[in-house]
Amino acid sequence: LAQQSRSAPAVGGPVSGPLVEFVLGSTLGDVPEKVRHEAKRSILNFFGAALGGNRDGCIERMLSVLGRFSVRPEASIIGRSERLDVLGAAFVNAASGNVFDFDDTHSGTIIHPTAPVAPALFAMAEVRPITGSKLLQAFLVGVEVECRIGKSVSPGHYRRGWHITSTCGIFGSAAAVARILRLDAERTLWALGNASAQSAGLVETLGTMAKSISVGNSARGGILAALLAETGLTGPAEPLAGPRGFCSVLGDAPHFEAITGGLGERWEILANTHKPYPCGVVLNPVIDACFALRSDPLFSLASVKGVRVEGHPLLRERADRPSVRTGREAQVSAQHSVAVVLIHGAAGVAQYDDDAVNDPAVLALRDKVQVVEAPGIAVEAARVTVSLHEDATLARFVENGRGTPERPLTDAEIETKVRDLAGYGCRLLDPARLIDAVWELEKVENAGSVMALARG
Amino acid sequence: LAQQSRSAPAVGGPVSGPLVEFVLGSTLGDVPEKVRHEAKRSILNFFGAALGGNRDGCIERMLSVLGRFSVRPEASIIGRSERLDVLGAAFVNAASGNVFDFDDTHSGTIIHPTAPVAPALFAMAEVRPITGSKLLQAFLVGVEVECRIGKSVSPGHYRRGWHITSTCGIFGSAAAVARILRLDAERTLWALGNASAQSAGLVETLGTMAKSISVGNSARGGILAALLAETGLTGPAEPLAGPRGFCSVLGDAPHFEAITGGLGERWEILANTHKPYPCGVVLNPVIDACFALRSDPLFSLASVKGVRVEGHPLLRERADRPSVRTGREAQVSAQHSVAVVLIHGAAGVAQYDDDAVNDPAVLALRDKVQVVEAPGIAVEAARVTVSLHEDATLARFVENGRGTPERPLTDAEIETKVRDLAGYGCRLLDPARLIDAVWELEKVENAGSVMALARG
Repeated sequence: LAQQSRSAPAVGGPVSGPLVEFVLGSTLGDVPEKVRHEAKRSILNFFGAALGGNRDGCIERMLSVLGRFSVRPEASIIGRSERLDVLGAAFVNAASGNVFDFDDTHSGTIIHPTAPVAPALFAMAEVRPITGSKLLQAFLVGVEVECRIGKSVSPGHYRRGWHITSTCGIFGSAAAVARILRLDAERTLWALGNASAQSAGLVETLGTMAKSISVGNSARGGILAALLAETGLTGPAEPLAGPRGFCSVLGDAPHFEAITGGLGERWEILANTHKPYPCGVVLNPVIDACFALRSDPLFSLASVKGVRVEGHPLLRERADRPSVRTGREAQVSAQHSVAVVLIHGAAGVAQYDDDAVNDPAVLALRDKVQVVEAPGIAVEAARVTVSLHEDATLARFVENGRGTPERPLTDAEIETKVRDLAGYGCRLLDPARLIDAVWELEKVENAGSVMALARG
Repeated sequence: LAQQSRSAPAVGGPVSGPLVEFVLGSTLGDVPEKVRHEAKRSILNFFGAALGGNRDGCIERMLSVLGRFSVRPEASIIGRSERLDVLGAAFVNAASGNVFDFDDTHSGTIIHPTAPVAPALFAMAEVRPITGSKLLQAFLVGVEVECRIGKSVSPGHYRRGWHITSTCGIFGSAAAVARILRLDAERTLWALGNASAQSAGLVETLGTMAKSISVGNSARGGILAALLAETGLTGPAEPLAGPRGFCSVLGDAPHFEAITGGLGERWEILANTHKPYPCGVVLNPVIDACFALRSDPLFSLASVKGVRVEGHPLLRERADRPSVRTGREAQVSAQHSVAVVLIHGAAGVAQYDDDAVNDPAVLALRDKVQVVEAPGIAVEAARVTVSLHEDATLARFVENGRGTPERPLTDAEIETKVRDLAGYGCRLLDPARLIDAVWELEKVENAGSVMALARG
């Protein structure tokens, strides 16, 4: 497909053209079972993240404004009873699924791929019924589009300061919605162009609520891009690879082969990972090591004199934060993570809220934790050593944290995560039927009905 | 003010902090009369541009989608009878005022400063009554914010491919709306942060309808940024100058002094210019020369053998386009501009619509026009030479086109432009009362009432 396309795409330039052909031409029959299964894992994990995130103060604030600008209560808000119009619901659900950064992470780009795409599709499915198969296929296409665009500008794009989930996610949302609207090739190209006009999001906003605006906009803006394209609102022929197009302006020396190579053969969603803990991935092996230490019979909390965390230089750079005051900051604090696991034996969203951060016991233990660089240790690994009174020490080395590509969460672990998160953010909801519906998504007749199982 | 601020801004970092203080602290009494007058010229010129632009196909398409997502018909659409909610109306009016690029141009940055700011303020004024003075003051503050941010990243920002009107305009809209909402300093800072999360717009979309999406979003997104900040949605301390903030990510080696220097003393709006013709500014002297040639008693259209346009290399680079097919392309075609002026003696929006472009007489004359570089000629100047049968030639050299900073349009010329544009895009509206109301804006008790004079 890609090779045919590159010689003469029906519309668009040499990069956007083949991508449009893939968006419209890909069929679920050609998608390997493993790929489809990973798509459902990602969607399920996303629902969990939104069930946990929907009560965050940031989401409450967004709802208080967007609720004033919603024309019809036509689309569900995950974990809540409010309903908004499709644009508003897509915005809020994307923000809520990503607010803790507890949704999926594409390991090639660190995009959170599901948040921009799934909320757009499920909101649309509530007003324009489509089957679960069609939604799944559109989801796969959207994820592929955003991750490939992200790869074409990685790693420089994020490093420069672009919040890649938002900047690239809007293309995924636009492509996925174009597909379910059954736009023709020219209008699908325009949908990508209309997305390029709205692509935004800065790393400077991470750690503040403003981050979630760009994530919300990536889902909302993709729907808007496709709806405007449907009316014939034109965009450029090459919104991605044109001299003043997305990849050139937001990337340095973009590699377009990442976008067009092996379309329909190689699936980026297979590089997707799911976090066991709601914090920066560099902390995964640290937390795993702490769980192991805590279950050691020789461990005793009262005897802890000090904790030494050793890891890759990136671990120290990103997560050596002894004094943090908010849950959001704590998500990137090794000191806080060590403390809550050793104290509570847990590292869920409840351990990263503002109350947990200011708990005196946690504060006291945090002060005893030291983070040091150990250049020999890979970024996926970490060693944690606890010094106890009477000069005893316990140490654990973890080579690959849970949730890394080498140690993916099992399906059952994802289900447990969903239940835990629902228990945190939406106590009255039993997610059992939601979990079943997602695993059986290809058989669901009306994909919009899944949202009824995720409402609070 | 600026110096005090830089030493210890009440909120924010060393760049965003002083800017916030200016947004909140500036008072109309301290603004020189000349500055206030230029603000009213810009607003009036904007209303004219929107009265002319509101029937464009792009605006029709936007209305057909946004009309489906408007919660209340509370805010007016310039030149039309539809009403949308404030977010939708701000979006459409910004797009419509800029769709022909016939609105104001800030000569230091080529930002079109009024389109992102005025529609946001007038839409808000329709739902939260404020005086004309307050609107004028907020407008001045918004324009100052966007142009200063633009200057801090110019000229690299636009050159790289950023549609600077949209990327910077959203900060102007956010600041202006924060001011009329009477947000405190912290929330005003967050409004800027919330704007930074949405700043978008690519030069690749120019010449297509997708351009207008980013312009519409700059006005809408600024309102949203301020409304979210009002609820307490937090942003970063230094959204502009932070290491992953707007200026660092979308600019190379930004000069922050352009933002903080002489705040309240130097006013960027004094560098604003107004176009006499709805096309690229490089064409202004060419068109002026053609008007002069056409009124020469020796000129005869039937005798024209050829036309030679000489100018700065930029003129050829931007406007040597012998074959164009749409009005939008024609706006940057020297060939088309020469042809319509020599044939019709006019260069208004009617001469740049799709019909005019495909008129056989225009096509025939276009083929006779040659654009050549004359390195000695400045970018503000041009020479046009017409060869007539019987070996006669007529030539005109124009040193400064009308509408350049050296030859600004007079107030009367702006009024004429508004009347012409209303005649094109909104025939049933006599803009006399609108014109009076803008000149008397400081005395208008309810600024929202001005919109009633601009409705179709």
